[in-house]
Amino acid sequence: MPEWRKDPLVKRWVVIATERGKRPTDYRVPRDEKKGGRCPLCPGHEGDTPPEVLAFRHGGTAPDTPGWWIRVVPNKFPAVRPEAQAGVRRHGVYEVMDGLGAHEVVVESPGHIANLDAVDERQLEEVIWAWQHRSLELRRDPRLKYIQIFKNFGQTAGASLEHTHSQILATPMVPVDVEEEMEGFKNYARSVGRCILCDVVAQEVSERQRVVLETGAFVSFAPYASRFPFETWIVPREHQHDFAMIREDQVRDLARVLRSTLLRLRRVLNNPPFNMVLHTAPVNEPDTAGYHWHLEIMPRLTIMAGFELGTGFYINPTPPELAAQVLREEEAYLPPPAYAGAEREAVRYV
Amino acid sequence: MPEWRKDPLVKRWVVIATERGKRPTDYRVPRDEKKGGRCPLCPGHEGDTPPEVLAFRHGGTAPDTPGWWIRVVPNKFPAVRPEAQAGVRRHGVYEVMDGLGAHEVVVESPGHIANLDAVDERQLEEVIWAWQHRSLELRRDPRLKYIQIFKNFGQTAGASLEHTHSQILATPMVPVDVEEEMEGFKNYARSVGRCILCDVVAQEVSERQRVVLETGAFVSFAPYASRFPFETWIVPREHQHDFAMIREDQVRDLARVLRSTLLRLRRVLNNPPFNMVLHTAPVNEPDTAGYHWHLEIMPRLTIMAGFELGTGFYINPTPPELAAQVLREEEAYLPPPAYAGAEREAVRYV
Repeated sequence: MPEWRKDPLVKRWVVIATERGKRPTDYRVPRDEKKGGRCPLCPGHEGDTPPEVLAFRHGGTAPDTPGWWIRVVPNKFPAVRPEAQAGVRRHGVYEVMDGLGAHEVVVESPGHIANLDAVDERQLEEVIWAWQHRSLELRRDPRLKYIQIFKNFGQTAGASLEHTHSQILATPMVPVDVEEEMEGFKNYARSVGRCILCDVVAQEVSERQRVVLETGAFVSFAPYASRFPFETWIVPREHQHDFAMIREDQVRDLARVLRSTLLRLRRVLNNPPFNMVLHTAPVNEPDTAGYHWHLEIMPRLTIMAGFELGTGFYINPTPPELAAQVLREEEAYLPPPAYAGAEREAVRYV
Repeated sequence: MPEWRKDPLVKRWVVIATERGKRPTDYRVPRDEKKGGRCPLCPGHEGDTPPEVLAFRHGGTAPDTPGWWIRVVPNKFPAVRPEAQAGVRRHGVYEVMDGLGAHEVVVESPGHIANLDAVDERQLEEVIWAWQHRSLELRRDPRLKYIQIFKNFGQTAGASLEHTHSQILATPMVPVDVEEEMEGFKNYARSVGRCILCDVVAQEVSERQRVVLETGAFVSFAPYASRFPFETWIVPREHQHDFAMIREDQVRDLARVLRSTLLRLRRVLNNPPFNMVLHTAPVNEPDTAGYHWHLEIMPRLTIMAGFELGTGFYINPTPPELAAQVLREEEAYLPPPAYAGAEREAVRYV
C-alpha cells in the first residue's frame, strides 16, 4: 500500500510507493553530451564574464586574470540586479517591484571539471568559504532578505555550463518556501519547545533507516517525506540558524560529507542531473533564530507534472528507506585529502 | 529592468523579464517521437485497462467493449487507492497515512488522437461533462477532500501515453497550493469585500494587455505573475467556487475557449508539451464558497531548477503581455462546430 507522508516542516504531503519501489536502474534520464566550445569559466577567459566580485587567488596575481582557485562573478544574464530600486508599487489589484537582487556565479574549480565531487576536499572547503563570504557581503544591503545559494548540475536540471559552478541569487523578499519552513519551525517550537529539525536528526540517527552517512558535525539522510527519488539532505547536528555562522571544523566536515554524498549519488545513479539548494535563515529580518539551515540535494529522475504543479504535493516512486540503503551500501571510497600543497596557503585576494 | 511581480492569490513572487522577452522561437524543447505499439486507450483494447468507472457510449453496447466516445478507467498503476484506510498515524516526529485516494484516466476521444484541440468542440464538451460526473461521484466518499483534474501532454510534461487523455487524482487532504489560494481569497474578501479573481478578471478585461480571448462566460489570459512562458488561465466570468456547478451554457463556452487556447498554443509554440490543472474548491470541507475555480495551462518550455525548487519563486523570461499578444494575434481558425451527428444523441451509459 502506498503511503501519504507529511513533511515535518511544511504542509506538504507526499505519496511514497512503499511496495516495489523503483531502484536506481529503473530511472532513465538523458545524460549530457560532451559540449565543446570555449568555456567562459576557465582561467584565461576571465574577460568572458563580468568582473569578479570575489576571488581566492595567488598573491601577486591581478583581478580578472588567471591565478585564482575560486572565482565569483555576477551572472552575465542576471535575473535580478542590485542597481534596481526597492519599493512595491500597485498596479490595480496587482503588486510589482523593480527587479532588485543579485545574481552571481561561483566558479568552483579552476580546472574544467564537471562534477563537484571530483574536486578534492580542500577545494570543496574553499567553495563553502566562498558561499559564506558572499552571503556575508550581500546581506550588507539591507534591502535584501534572502540569499539563495544553489547548484544545477546537468542540462535536465537546468545547467547551461559544464564547468562546475554554483549560483547565488539574493532576493528582496523572503521566499514563500522559506517562509513556510519558518512557520513550521515556529509552530513546533511553540508546542514542543524544541527545534523540529534537531528532533528529525535525532530520530534519523536513532532509527538508522534513512541515514546515508554521519560525521561528527553533519548527518546526510533521505528525508522521510522525500519529494524526489534519492532526495538527500545534509543537516548540521548543532542547531545553527544561519549558514554563514559555519565554523572551520564544520566546513571541513561538510566538505567531506557533501563530497561523499555526491559521489554516492553519481555512482548509484550513473551521474544524474540534480539540483542542490542551501536553505538558511532569512537575512535582515527579525526573529529567525529558530531556523536550522540545511542542504537539499534533489536528483532529477522524474518529471514534475500536472499533479505536482497543481497541488504542491508529490508522488515519489522510490521509498527513502530504499534510497538510503542503496546509497549507504555504496562504499564511496574517500581518498585521504589530497591537498594541492603550498598554493592553497597563498593569501586570499578578496 | 526585470520586474518582481506578486501573484495576487498566493505569496509567490515571479521575476518577469520585461526587456527583450523571449519569443516563441527562442524556446527549443524536445518534441515527442511518434510512438508505435499497442495503445491501451483505443477501442477494442478495453481489456488493457481496469474496468471502466464511467463511459458515454451508444445504447446497447456493453461496458468495457467498443461503442464509447468517453471512457474513464482507474489508473492501472495508481499512486493512491480507494480501498485504503483514512487516519493519520504518528511515527516519532513524523505523520503518515495509508495511500488513500483515487487515480483515474479520462480517455478524451475514441480516435487515437494526440491533441485535445484536434477533437471537435462537441466532443470537448463531453470531456468536460465527464470531469464533472467523476467530480460529483468521487466526492461521495466523505474522506476525500480534493479532486485534482489535470492533463499532461508530451513526454517532457510527464505524459506516458500518446492517446489524448486527462487524469483525476482525488486526495484525502486539501493540497497545500489550494489551501494557500483559499487563504488568498479569504484575505482579500476580508479586506476588500470582493473575490480577488473576479477583480482580476475585471482588470484584465478592462486593460486588454494580457487577454488571449474572451467569450460570454469565460476569459482566457496570461496571468500577471505568470510562472512559465505562455502560461494561460481560463477563468469563468461568473463567481463559481466549484467546477462541478458548471451549467450547460458554460460547458459549451468552455469547450470553445479551451479548444481555441490550446490550438493557439500549439501553433505558436510548435506543439509544446504542457500541463493543465483545474483548480477548484475543496470538497467535503466547510467554508469554500469564496473560491473561484479556473484552469491553468502551463507550457513546459523552461526547466524548473534550483532557484525555483529552493524558493517557490520563479524566473519567467517571457512577459505575459508579449505571450498574450502573440497568442491573440494567432488567428486560430475555429471551424463551425462539426457535430458528429446522431451518435452523440445516444444515451449516456454511465
